[in-house]
Amino acid sequence: MKALILAAGEGRRLKESAAKGKIYFPKPLTPLLGLSLLERTILNLRENGIEEIFIVTGYQGEKIKRFIKDGSRYGVKVSYIDNDQWTKGNGSSVLAAERTLKKESSFLLIMADHVMQPGAVKKLLESDEQVKPGEVYVLVDYKCQKVFRIEEATKVLVDSDGRILDIGKDIKDYNAVDCGVFLCTSGIFQALSDEALEGRHALSDGIRRLAKNGMVKGVDIGEEWWIDVDDKWDLEEARKRLLESLRSPRDGLISKLINRRLSIPISGLVASTRVTPNMISFLNFLVACLSAAAFIKGLWPVGGLLAQSAAVIDGVDGEIARLKYMATKYGAYFDSILDRYGDALIIFGMTLGWYLAHSEVFIWLLGSAALIGSPMSMLGKEKFHALTGNPYYPEKYDGFLRYVPANRDGRLFLIMLGSIFGQLPLVLGILAVITNVLAFGRLVMVRKVLCR
Amino acid sequence: MKALILAAGEGRRLKESAAKGKIYFPKPLTPLLGLSLLERTILNLRENGIEEIFIVTGYQGEKIKRFIKDGSRYGVKVSYIDNDQWTKGNGSSVLAAERTLKKESSFLLIMADHVMQPGAVKKLLESDEQVKPGEVYVLVDYKCQKVFRIEEATKVLVDSDGRILDIGKDIKDYNAVDCGVFLCTSGIFQALSDEALEGRHALSDGIRRLAKNGMVKGVDIGEEWWIDVDDKWDLEEARKRLLESLRSPRDGLISKLINRRLSIPISGLVASTRVTPNMISFLNFLVACLSAAAFIKGLWPVGGLLAQSAAVIDGVDGEIARLKYMATKYGAYFDSILDRYGDALIIFGMTLGWYLAHSEVFIWLLGSAALIGSPMSMLGKEKFHALTGNPYYPEKYDGFLRYVPANRDGRLFLIMLGSIFGQLPLVLGILAVITNVLAFGRLVMVRKVLCR
Repeated sequence: MKALILAAGEGRRLKESAAKGKIYFPKPLTPLLGLSLLERTILNLRENGIEEIFIVTGYQGEKIKRFIKDGSRYGVKVSYIDNDQWTKGNGSSVLAAERTLKKESSFLLIMADHVMQPGAVKKLLESDEQVKPGEVYVLVDYKCQKVFRIEEATKVLVDSDGRILDIGKDIKDYNAVDCGVFLCTSGIFQALSDEALEGRHALSDGIRRLAKNGMVKGVDIGEEWWIDVDDKWDLEEARKRLLESLRSPRDGLISKLINRRLSIPISGLVASTRVTPNMISFLNFLVACLSAAAFIKGLWPVGGLLAQSAAVIDGVDGEIARLKYMATKYGAYFDSILDRYGDALIIFGMTLGWYLAHSEVFIWLLGSAALIGSPMSMLGKEKFHALTGNPYYPEKYDGFLRYVPANRDGRLFLIMLGSIFGQLPLVLGILAVITNVLAFGRLVMVRKVLCR
Repeated sequence: MKALILAAGEGRRLKESAAKGKIYFPKPLTPLLGLSLLERTILNLRENGIEEIFIVTGYQGEKIKRFIKDGSRYGVKVSYIDNDQWTKGNGSSVLAAERTLKKESSFLLIMADHVMQPGAVKKLLESDEQVKPGEVYVLVDYKCQKVFRIEEATKVLVDSDGRILDIGKDIKDYNAVDCGVFLCTSGIFQALSDEALEGRHALSDGIRRLAKNGMVKGVDIGEEWWIDVDDKWDLEEARKRLLESLRSPRDGLISKLINRRLSIPISGLVASTRVTPNMISFLNFLVACLSAAAFIKGLWPVGGLLAQSAAVIDGVDGEIARLKYMATKYGAYFDSILDRYGDALIIFGMTLGWYLAHSEVFIWLLGSAALIGSPMSMLGKEKFHALTGNPYYPEKYDGFLRYVPANRDGRLFLIMLGSIFGQLPLVLGILAVITNVLAFGRLVMVRKVLCR
């Protein structure tokens, strides 16, 4: 499917609301966590499998073209459509694309300045097979109470069949909000032309005209969020929501309570630099090496705090990858192998450090048992994933074992705690027990799932 | 798709050729490596996704029914069709199924006493979409020089388009051999009826009739093999080929040269018992534990030989699973986790044993490094598989690293060699180097494959 991005407007309110010296123009190029709004929209589309994109430019269009170029940097093909009528209204920008897109059975229409996750756009694309000629499907949000500054939003009245009855910024009777993403057929061009003849040039005018003929349907955005960035408060809210969405429902307890609270603000800072996720994975490994070195030197609390730092940094690589659409399979591979080495080196450092300090040979038994158990959680999960094609969900398959803190966040936190109190043998013993109990316990737990 | 298995014949030649006291009857129930010929055929079909099977019985049909029952034990639905005309010829057995199958657009026809791998049947099934009404597709083998006792086989003459021109046991002009598997449409029933009216009752008579009208095509079995089991020599050859097919192109060098040569004969013996693959995986783990115990006791050569025994037994579980269609995802999971524990315990045993014997602390450094590297090969492979959905092929991705003997077969063989010569520190050092070099080397090697 092809997509049309509207990027012709001036965005005066963002300009006026922004602090001096922080004025970014034109608005589609405004940076947000390391990517401009327009780049976010392009990458969102690519994530949804759209590879051919048309951008309608108007205000300072040359700047946009110089910045985005042919799109190859983003893995898509970008072409430009100039709209010298852009001051009239955004409907004119859609009309400017009529010649290019009128023969498409359907195409996606999206605003350059609307921020949302790929999952939101996906909801609309999934209904593509149902769109009939002449119709337009609109992504709508029924969670009106959660919409940021609803007074600025375009409201819609949707009936129980999803048919849109009315649309407008100031309608009184509404039950949802237009999210600014449309699945269009060429019907939109006729409607906008007709409206233009009557002097109305907004996209919502065209949609209203189609809606009166029963040709517009709403598609629920569900639990996803979206933000129309008009001024600096919107921008701040978009930033907040993007960062908040980095939390994963699969995070362990320590991740949830501690690590994410530290890693997300760090990611917020790192996102606007050129630091890549793989660099952070490597940094995470280096910090683990430093932790091991500190343990060998007998600096228990330093080693422990460095181990916990590694756990925090371990979150940042994935967060940056998701924030900036930089996730690669190689990154996931690189990260998980280096994590296992980091874990192993920390355990080895604790063991050797304790031995050098106390000459107690039994520590090698504890250390070896902890070393053996350390990679087993990941081994089991990856083997499961490789065999079934589905990720291993501890909360689904682990039964009561899911309360064992044998994930990386739990293990490194235990190490920090024990190190602060100088209880290295105790920590190594606990690690040895929980990791190996989990591995053998899973042999029982996954039996039902994996036996056919 | 439904399938029809012909199991009505007497199999007199097998009876006559078998040694006294070793007479199995009726022939479809003759055991071959732990499964009867008929069970092998049923499980082969299930492996190919066929779940509804009709078996034509004649000679001692009640015995067959009592043995196979409703097929639920094999994960399929089995129904029976009695053919009291079976002495006339095998065409009569196909005709007995006319009422049951004539409305199917196509069905698979296979002989109960033909042994082959699921991959062979799959070749024929893959051409299902091309079969036109009235046609029959025959699985044929162009590797005439490799066919076991070709004088007994039904030959076919196939033209360059795959069209079969002639078929028969005694035709002089042929270029391939009929493998006894057919993709039929209802055309076969008409042809067999017509032949029967003229007094000919063999399946090949019906096929010849269709072939004369250009309605029969040959589908190449390719590199797969097949055997029509008529007497004890055929049975012996089938056994040999089934066992030989247990070798895997992905076996490491030591596996190829040593371990498989021992494990395959063991599997040949174990197959006819009730021992399951998971029991063998567990035995493999126990032998690894014994090896570790021997090392701790200072019995280097005993420990080394037990380690190598574990490597041999490690082949048997998978071989039995494939031989007896018992492969499950759980078995693969169970085996690989226990293997990692076995490996780790052997390394730990060597380290502790050497320390107890010599009180040299440096052995713990070597042991720890070897313990850290030991699971990394599997970790990398499984992560790759989980990320891409495809197995990791060392020969494809490892570059020059594929010559590093860091797979389990190589590692355990090194341990045996070193132990016999009492060189435990040397072996642990080598293991530490090769496993960790491989893990870090792969971080470089897989970059191209995994970066999009």
